[in-house]
Amino acid sequence: MLNTQQFIADCEAVRSKSPLVHNITNYVAMNIAANGLLAIGASPLMSFYEEEMDEIVKIASALVINIGCLDSNEIAGMKAAAEAADKYAKPWVLDPVGAGASVVRTQTALELIKNHPTIIRGNASEIMCLAGAQIASRGVDSSEKSSDAVDAAKSLAKSTGAVVSVSGPVDYITDGERVETIANGSPLMPMVTAMGCTASALTGAFAAVSPTAFDAALHTMAVMGLAGEFAAKDAKGTGTFGVNFLDELTVFNAEEAVKSLRQI
Amino acid sequence: MLNTQQFIADCEAVRSKSPLVHNITNYVAMNIAANGLLAIGASPLMSFYEEEMDEIVKIASALVINIGCLDSNEIAGMKAAAEAADKYAKPWVLDPVGAGASVVRTQTALELIKNHPTIIRGNASEIMCLAGAQIASRGVDSSEKSSDAVDAAKSLAKSTGAVVSVSGPVDYITDGERVETIANGSPLMPMVTAMGCTASALTGAFAAVSPTAFDAALHTMAVMGLAGEFAAKDAKGTGTFGVNFLDELTVFNAEEAVKSLRQI
Amino acid sequence: MLNTQQFIADCEAVRSKSPLVHNITNYVAMNIAANGLLAIGASPLMSFYEEEMDEIVKIASALVINIGCLDSNEIAGMKAAAEAADKYAKPWVLDPVGAGASVVRTQTALELIKNHPTIIRGNASEIMCLAGAQIASRGVDSSEKSSDAVDAAKSLAKSTGAVVSVSGPVDYITDGERVETIANGSPLMPMVTAMGCTASALTGAFAAVSPTAFDAALHTMAVMGLAGEFAAKDAKGTGTFGVNFLDELTVFNAEEAVKSLRQI
Repeated sequence: MLNTQQFIADCEAVRSKSPLVHNITNYVAMNIAANGLLAIGASPLMSFYEEEMDEIVKIASALVINIGCLDSNEIAGMKAAAEAADKYAKPWVLDPVGAGASVVRTQTALELIKNHPTIIRGNASEIMCLAGAQIASRGVDSSEKSSDAVDAAKSLAKSTGAVVSVSGPVDYITDGERVETIANGSPLMPMVTAMGCTASALTGAFAAVSPTAFDAALHTMAVMGLAGEFAAKDAKGTGTFGVNFLDELTVFNAEEAVKSLRQI
Repeated sequence: MLNTQQFIADCEAVRSKSPLVHNITNYVAMNIAANGLLAIGASPLMSFYEEEMDEIVKIASALVINIGCLDSNEIAGMKAAAEAADKYAKPWVLDPVGAGASVVRTQTALELIKNHPTIIRGNASEIMCLAGAQIASRGVDSSEKSSDAVDAAKSLAKSTGAVVSVSGPVDYITDGERVETIANGSPLMPMVTAMGCTASALTGAFAAVSPTAFDAALHTMAVMGLAGEFAAKDAKGTGTFGVNFLDELTVFNAEEAVKSLRQI
Repeated sequence: MLNTQQFIADCEAVRSKSPLVHNITNYVAMNIAANGLLAIGASPLMSFYEEEMDEIVKIASALVINIGCLDSNEIAGMKAAAEAADKYAKPWVLDPVGAGASVVRTQTALELIKNHPTIIRGNASEIMCLAGAQIASRGVDSSEKSSDAVDAAKSLAKSTGAVVSVSGPVDYITDGERVETIANGSPLMPMVTAMGCTASALTGAFAAVSPTAFDAALHTMAVMGLAGEFAAKDAKGTGTFGVNFLDELTVFNAEEAVKSLRQI
């Protein structure tokens, strides 16, 4: 189960250390990912220009690569950044958006995995695709339940050495042996774009301060699920939900919030 | 006039079928277009990478190409996507943002039209430019009234075979013969960026489920106008308007909403 | 001190003239920058495609170049736009985001400065970097207080001929001799992404209508600080702050608002 004291300590560490999190993410997610990072106390930097990747990764505390919007320039930047993170031993998070939806997406994700991501965070379809399971992907939204992906996630964790974080109605976090869950959240969350991308960005911030990659992945999904649940309470629709969600991250009180945590 | 039963049926079909709508759109519009699609029940996918266009268009239910932010990579992706949509007989929507404002914009739009868009959706300036009318464009906001564009729209519909949807204080939808209007909306709508782009994205969702392209274009503008009108009621400014608009799309009740419809 | 009558006149001129402001800005900022411009009454246009830069700059009333998200295509577009602005004697604003964080950022900013920006608007770290001061940059958020940058700003203004606008808890505006301050704002502002980029975009609108570049820079920071302060009043967190901020810009009443102005 989630260690409450360590969870509170990690949340406080993000605010007190304000880690610089370098994000290569898609255009849909950039604004909300940056605002999510700022709201929890981290410092976001968005850049994918190959020429500056080595310098930027070097000064950052963590790197997040999200392959949502690909083009040849972005892929070059992603590769350079992943190599730099590996070289400088910076924690880094891979979000394999849409892996399985096209050949180039699956290949780009598999190529990046060679640079030893600390954490791989995706939905069930993406994780099952990367684990080699034969599934029919349907765009970038998952057509699989996250529970179906647990075995795939364990297998992917074992083969890559990364912690694997699978988001869905119940989130699963595994290092290949241990499996933890977060069962908070709201049905409004998959109706708001880039919530998964925001989870990946926040995972980068926790990876920069947490003693272990497993805790970083687990604590992030706890924050996402709790803030999402609180944000949904007074939401009329996805507009107010999005606003409330940033507000809940801004005022997030780990000690109080953790009382609402549900694990299964 | 708009057929109320068909309007309700189309709105329900978007929610029940949740069509995968592939968008190539500009960076300003990506977030709100994706959130708008999710709020009405569709499933958005944003990608412009030439290498995966054929695969993505193949799995999508509709394609939307918005030329708002051009560069050479994006143009290559747009052309590949339009060709694939034509090849796989997928309904597709062209939003010729800023046609007339530069040579490359006009040329790109005219080039894409060769791939037989199902629906062309733009403002009066853009439609008049594409129809060959001599007008002075002023950036990406229309310097023409939408009513001035009716003849141009009919002419463009006849020459291309597309349904043409012109947004403005009154929206005009035509297939070259029949002309329908939607007179709902709010003066706040042109003060919020990417509302036209959102209309194009939603047109893609309706094009995926509606029996006819004409109904798809008409029903989308009805949803936009009605949700916009409802959203403006309690809006202090464009910030709350944007939030309310997504809320109104989320809770949109076609049967109730259509009672407020105005056509002229 | 700020001239109240001139401030009111400039705010009214933005609404009555609705200047077309051409922005080359980063993907994080595009939506809020466009919405900020629309809310104060200006007309935004976002494009960075090299091929259309000359035409777009020619029809625009002002240009804003923000180097937040660089790649080789964007840099080519920025250079073409800056050259065109210089050629057509259009007022233009440079926001040197992250100057000092990588070699290519510093070089790109210095290269663009050769095309005579009317106003350079950045945070303390960026301005000190461009002025040649030896400082340690930490990503794109400033690690320097804006007051530390006053001497650097004066020096940069003298060497470039540009008005320099440094944002921070207190904003400093200088032409190399005269220095004015704006002390409004809210601690929530640096917790929302792209507020600096929005300040640059709005500076473009004021540069298009204001009799002097100094007034344009000063009046923009007054609007930003005042609207930000009003927006923070009822904000629970950064979500509601962002919404309130656009609302405050929409309903901004210069005559009333200026009564809350603080200069030091």
